[in-house]
Amino acid sequence: MSYILHYAPDNASLIIRAALELRGLPYTAQLVDRSTREQTSAPYRALNPNGLIPVLETPQGPIFETGAILLWLADTHGGLGPAPDDPARADFLKWLFFISNTLHSALRMMFYPEKFIAPAQTAALRRGLCQTLHQSFTTLDQAAAADPALFAGTSPTVLEPYIAALLRWSALYPGNHDRNWFALSNYPALHRICARLETLPLTQCLHITEGLGTHPFTDPHLPNPPIGSAT
Amino acid sequence: MSYILHYAPDNASLIIRAALELRGLPYTAQLVDRSTREQTSAPYRALNPNGLIPVLETPQGPIFETGAILLWLADTHGGLGPAPDDPARADFLKWLFFISNTLHSALRMMFYPEKFIAPAQTAALRRGLCQTLHQSFTTLDQAAAADPALFAGTSPTVLEPYIAALLRWSALYPGNHDRNWFALSNYPALHRICARLETLPLTQCLHITEGLGTHPFTDPHLPNPPIGSAT
Repeated sequence: MSYILHYAPDNASLIIRAALELRGLPYTAQLVDRSTREQTSAPYRALNPNGLIPVLETPQGPIFETGAILLWLADTHGGLGPAPDDPARADFLKWLFFISNTLHSALRMMFYPEKFIAPAQTAALRRGLCQTLHQSFTTLDQAAAADPALFAGTSPTVLEPYIAALLRWSALYPGNHDRNWFALSNYPALHRICARLETLPLTQCLHITEGLGTHPFTDPHLPNPPIGSAT
Repeated sequence: MSYILHYAPDNASLIIRAALELRGLPYTAQLVDRSTREQTSAPYRALNPNGLIPVLETPQGPIFETGAILLWLADTHGGLGPAPDDPARADFLKWLFFISNTLHSALRMMFYPEKFIAPAQTAALRRGLCQTLHQSFTTLDQAAAADPALFAGTSPTVLEPYIAALLRWSALYPGNHDRNWFALSNYPALHRICARLETLPLTQCLHITEGLGTHPFTDPHLPNPPIGSAT
């Protein structure tokens, strides 16, 4: 049994790829060609009606939502986070949902503000989102520093690639305005999460398959993928 | 063992209260006094550093994030959604995360746009959010119609009170602009979810404890709680 990961380089699919690699799970990566807006095609919408990347095809059908896929993989295979009967489960879930519905959703608006507001106001929305993102990363950094068993355990949970990808994008992408709002050094515990991931084979895999570079989290550069495009 | 639910009337805590009532779980409800901004106090922030309602105190410590609490209750007690080894788990998780990070997060911005943008632009942001909310409710309505086993099974999952509360707030609260964007009748499968919940004892409980009325989802009115305030 092998999963099928529908991906585009440097999209949220990289988080799922990282989790699959971390756990050594078999999968085939299938490019979604964003240059032709394949994610809005009828076949892709049959997998995810929202037309968003990623989708993971599983024996239970296609799963979308990054957080849902991560949690499903963790619970199905173990080794990627506290199991349902683990005393650390509550903390794991609350931070997974926080990352999904506060950080990730704010970054999605940062990248596509025109989906939420008229063109004349997108810059204003981005300025506001910078502040909320900084606040959320600060909260998460404090949580990570206070709970090394969860955020810096013997082997990474799915929280770690999720956090690292959001930090990467924050450094790289919200580009058509003042970028000075973001510095990874402001979040030392999150920086350590990024640095650890870069010592693992998953980082080399992300570089080979998606062109993310050798330090995609602590020193991110725009991707140079062998095929496909990030936007 | 009894849980402690930190709540305010007609806040997201109502979703947790509904789930606890649905499953008949013992809990004590502890009012967070929004009139004095108690949710921003140091004791409350020790429970949830984000200063948001709800928090559920459990033997694993305080849990925040509505979706996380719902999933934790479902997995800890059963009977509130597909278990981790159930074939319907993937669909359950993907819609739970979608509701949390797309619908709930958009509604939070709708209620508190000033946290995300300057005062002059809040009306524009709300107009854009109305469109994305309508699109998201439409997607969810189609999913619910297509999968009655998950969305209209023998007994409700945690998805149902979560969806019903978001519909209630959409009808009631984003008030200082055109309200015509929202009509529950546009979403017939979601309407049925709301109508079913109103036949259950949890609705009477919400009315007695939070003053939500006898038809809080299909015919919502502003709350008239015995104690506390919604904002």
